[in-house]
Amino acid sequence: MAFDPASLKFTPDGLIPAIAQDAETGEVLMMAWMNADAVMQTLETGRVTYWSRSRQAFWVKGETSGHVQELLDFRVDCDRDCLLLRVRQTGPACHTNRRTCFYTAVRDDDEVELMKPEV
Amino acid sequence: MAFDPASLKFTPDGLIPAIAQDAETGEVLMMAWMNADAVMQTLETGRVTYWSRSRQAFWVKGETSGHVQELLDFRVDCDRDCLLLRVRQTGPACHTNRRTCFYTAVRDDDEVELMKPEV
Repeated sequence: MAFDPASLKFTPDGLIPAIAQDAETGEVLMMAWMNADAVMQTLETGRVTYWSRSRQAFWVKGETSGHVQELLDFRVDCDRDCLLLRVRQTGPACHTNRRTCFYTAVRDDDEVELMKPEV
Repeated sequence: MAFDPASLKFTPDGLIPAIAQDAETGEVLMMAWMNADAVMQTLETGRVTYWSRSRQAFWVKGETSGHVQELLDFRVDCDRDCLLLRVRQTGPACHTNRRTCFYTAVRDDDEVELMKPEV
């Protein structure tokens, strides 16, 4: 069946959450948002492109930092309201320079930092 | 630092997206939503509990199906607006009886079903 981005379920703001996962290690790197045009651009270019809610603009991941995400596989969930992007991540995914944005664990009611920024 | 659920960034509806990942295989299983009480309940019981937006009620994952998620590690992202739950998943995570909700890939503009329901 041909994929139609209009078949996705977007929020009232026209957005859909997209989870980026390192295809090699399985690590969940980040979650950000796409609109229909960002979905199309990501599929067409193979460069993961989000929609920045704060800047209200396309956000080609890594365009300024060089920490690009190459799309390896694009997945849609059963409800069609969430995306999973299997990617090849260059450098750290997080703007804090950590490999993943999920570097804080909650253990025994305390926050534990699991990794330091890369240098 | 002690973890305070009030320090998370919730949507105007009081919700935060939570990604469930199989801790053993790394597979991303599903994405659903929690409110502050669901976060606390999940941490206290070790049984992953979401907030059902359609039913406007707690949703103890697997309570009726038996397909429970045992919490192994609870992570918060850099912006504190997304959660990652590393879990031990009993049975399929998806309500379609598939292992993961992300069973559809988009490849060469076509949708490809990656797995069948478990029996």
